[in-house]
Amino acid sequence: MTDSAGAPASQNMRAAGHSLLPGAPVVGMVGGGQLARMTAAAAIGLGVGFRVLADSPDDSAAQVCAGTQLGDYRSLADLAAFARDADVLTFDHEHVPGEHLAALEAGGVAVRPGPAALLLTQDKLVMRERLTGLGVACPRFAPVATLADVQEFTGGSWPVVLKSIRGGYDGKGVWVCESAAQAATVLAYPGLALSGAPGPGAGPMFMAEEFVPFGRELAVLAACSPHRQGAVYPVVQTVQRDGICREVIAPAPGLPPGRAAQAAALALRIAAELGVTGLLAVEIFETEAGLLVNELAMRPHNSGHWTIEGAKTSQFEQHLRAVLDLPLGSPALAAPATAMANVLGGDDGDIYDRYIHVMAADPGVKVHMYGKSVRPGRKIGHVTVTGDGAHRDPAELADRARRAASYLRWGTEDGS
Amino acid sequence: MTDSAGAPASQNMRAAGHSLLPGAPVVGMVGGGQLARMTAAAAIGLGVGFRVLADSPDDSAAQVCAGTQLGDYRSLADLAAFARDADVLTFDHEHVPGEHLAALEAGGVAVRPGPAALLLTQDKLVMRERLTGLGVACPRFAPVATLADVQEFTGGSWPVVLKSIRGGYDGKGVWVCESAAQAATVLAYPGLALSGAPGPGAGPMFMAEEFVPFGRELAVLAACSPHRQGAVYPVVQTVQRDGICREVIAPAPGLPPGRAAQAAALALRIAAELGVTGLLAVEIFETEAGLLVNELAMRPHNSGHWTIEGAKTSQFEQHLRAVLDLPLGSPALAAPATAMANVLGGDDGDIYDRYIHVMAADPGVKVHMYGKSVRPGRKIGHVTVTGDGAHRDPAELADRARRAASYLRWGTEDGS
Repeated sequence: MTDSAGAPASQNMRAAGHSLLPGAPVVGMVGGGQLARMTAAAAIGLGVGFRVLADSPDDSAAQVCAGTQLGDYRSLADLAAFARDADVLTFDHEHVPGEHLAALEAGGVAVRPGPAALLLTQDKLVMRERLTGLGVACPRFAPVATLADVQEFTGGSWPVVLKSIRGGYDGKGVWVCESAAQAATVLAYPGLALSGAPGPGAGPMFMAEEFVPFGRELAVLAACSPHRQGAVYPVVQTVQRDGICREVIAPAPGLPPGRAAQAAALALRIAAELGVTGLLAVEIFETEAGLLVNELAMRPHNSGHWTIEGAKTSQFEQHLRAVLDLPLGSPALAAPATAMANVLGGDDGDIYDRYIHVMAADPGVKVHMYGKSVRPGRKIGHVTVTGDGAHRDPAELADRARRAASYLRWGTEDGS
Repeated sequence: MTDSAGAPASQNMRAAGHSLLPGAPVVGMVGGGQLARMTAAAAIGLGVGFRVLADSPDDSAAQVCAGTQLGDYRSLADLAAFARDADVLTFDHEHVPGEHLAALEAGGVAVRPGPAALLLTQDKLVMRERLTGLGVACPRFAPVATLADVQEFTGGSWPVVLKSIRGGYDGKGVWVCESAAQAATVLAYPGLALSGAPGPGAGPMFMAEEFVPFGRELAVLAACSPHRQGAVYPVVQTVQRDGICREVIAPAPGLPPGRAAQAAALALRIAAELGVTGLLAVEIFETEAGLLVNELAMRPHNSGHWTIEGAKTSQFEQHLRAVLDLPLGSPALAAPATAMANVLGGDDGDIYDRYIHVMAADPGVKVHMYGKSVRPGRKIGHVTVTGDGAHRDPAELADRARRAASYLRWGTEDGS
């Protein structure tokens, strides 16, 4: 009936990625990374259809998702073909060209979040200008093209942060410059300003931002549906190293209730003002003077991985509910405290033996691996530890998570 | 690059169901039902490879699992082809013919649980004889072929329970007979004794069991690995109607600690004595005189669906960890109390509108749908409600779960 190579695609693919539950829609997610992979797991629970547009069958989500279509997110033809087999189009990254998003929407595709909102995650200068226009506190900023622009911005006071206006992620495209010489180096190598189509009439490739001597970083995750129902998760603390999120503690320890409420209100207001559909992640600097918005994302976000175990509704399920205009799930805590640590690839790729040891050492650690090959510094998984009755001290939970993640990485830990 | 029909199978399938995480093994699960579907979600988290052998691309698991192979679980050739692409073979049902399991194992396939253990879930008479031999308390039983056999068994005291020795599930293959006439009807229609290959030298098709006037039903779920590590979940209460599990409350309300410990020890002992690898579900009658074992299953089980939200490690992840000989995860409660209710198909198949209403009515309800079409009485999903600080009364949680499940079913609720 079948051979070991599997049945023909036409047979295997007939129902793949669809649901026979009467009336159930299909979500198409552009991008095959770990965010799509974890969203696929949430779609399994909800019973809705789910498909991904992936670059390669080796992509993290493509390995697991029956509804995988291979294609190029930079190709309008590939996007349009993918969208034909989905009721709603959404994204696991912000790199789809804005003109394609506009063309798809004009063609009747339900693009969620929509092109106007997504532009703000693609262009940091537009985002800053928009937020400032709304009266949202942000670091001081200015577009810069030359060293003279930078020097005028700093007024001689260093360091300054230079950012690629488009295409950055995970610390790439952000440079903390301690001197004019360092700034000149960044500006002199436009190749450093990462790819990301600037589009017609593009302005400068860089912007300068004041260096904020923040106390710590917070993040807050909100969801908004087309009906404009909103829900916001408890505010978390994030720990970054080398521009990469390494740990998240939920809820943020010791955050005064008033400030937590302020951050939650901020996220809901930004989501509403920008017309976000789906998730909105707001990265925040907590300073002595108050909260400053650092970055925005409109998709499931690393700062929300803790919600899989730590909240009543995971961010991945919430994103699906929001883009499908389903009533949102409860964002309440499911545990008194939760710690998440990212697993980065290390020098020793032979990871499965260590995976076994980590499970043996702490049966309460939840290991999530993304099916990725190991490259130094690459996010290949995360671990989560939830607190309970006697063990709810955030520092203790974070220590357990950090220890498991470090062990999985092996050999190149940076002193954490 | 691709068209809307998707890329060729050879391209799409290359990595499907495998993990690029170095050293990660592949689990092959025979059967494409909801248990395989939920196990697929757990495999996504663990980052191990996962494939299913499904009858049809419409099967619940085949809709979502990239690593789907179509084939017939009754065909040794199909099983062997499937096993070639997996490191471990396991099951979402107990219907694979025992001689095929033995042949696969003889051919070097890691069959977990093994054929000897699985036989006990395929043949209720063998199971009863084995448990009785171990001194495990069970209802009184005897194989029966004729009405005279039944009458001798009852000694004139009715009702009596007749069971098909092979092939029953979800209340099918079990008849509570109030009279000799009813027993005669069951025995007279061998077609009622469900399919399930009797194998060479098969004995009688029916067995009789005493009708146990139990107080309630409990279930306990244990996991055992090839290294013989064992873990046991808290004992739960199950509520059956028409032989179908309808609700589960975890932990079982009001169960004296001594009796809970007795049930847990019973499950671990049975798992050890029978050499079970993977999960063992033990269904128990709680009577005034003590605990009587009703049924066994060696796979993820309906009585354990609550563990997805209610325990630190879900039964699906635990089954994968056990069959892969990974250290087991913590089976501890993740919430003080959890209630699960099955969603059965009703008369009105247009379910998606009601799905929206249920989510709107109670944002704390976790809805799991299996992607199945709706047929009256068919298990098409389940809902789970976890308790927290102020809301941990099991009766209140069960009421919320039951209300959501009833509403999803619509129209044919049986007065629960």
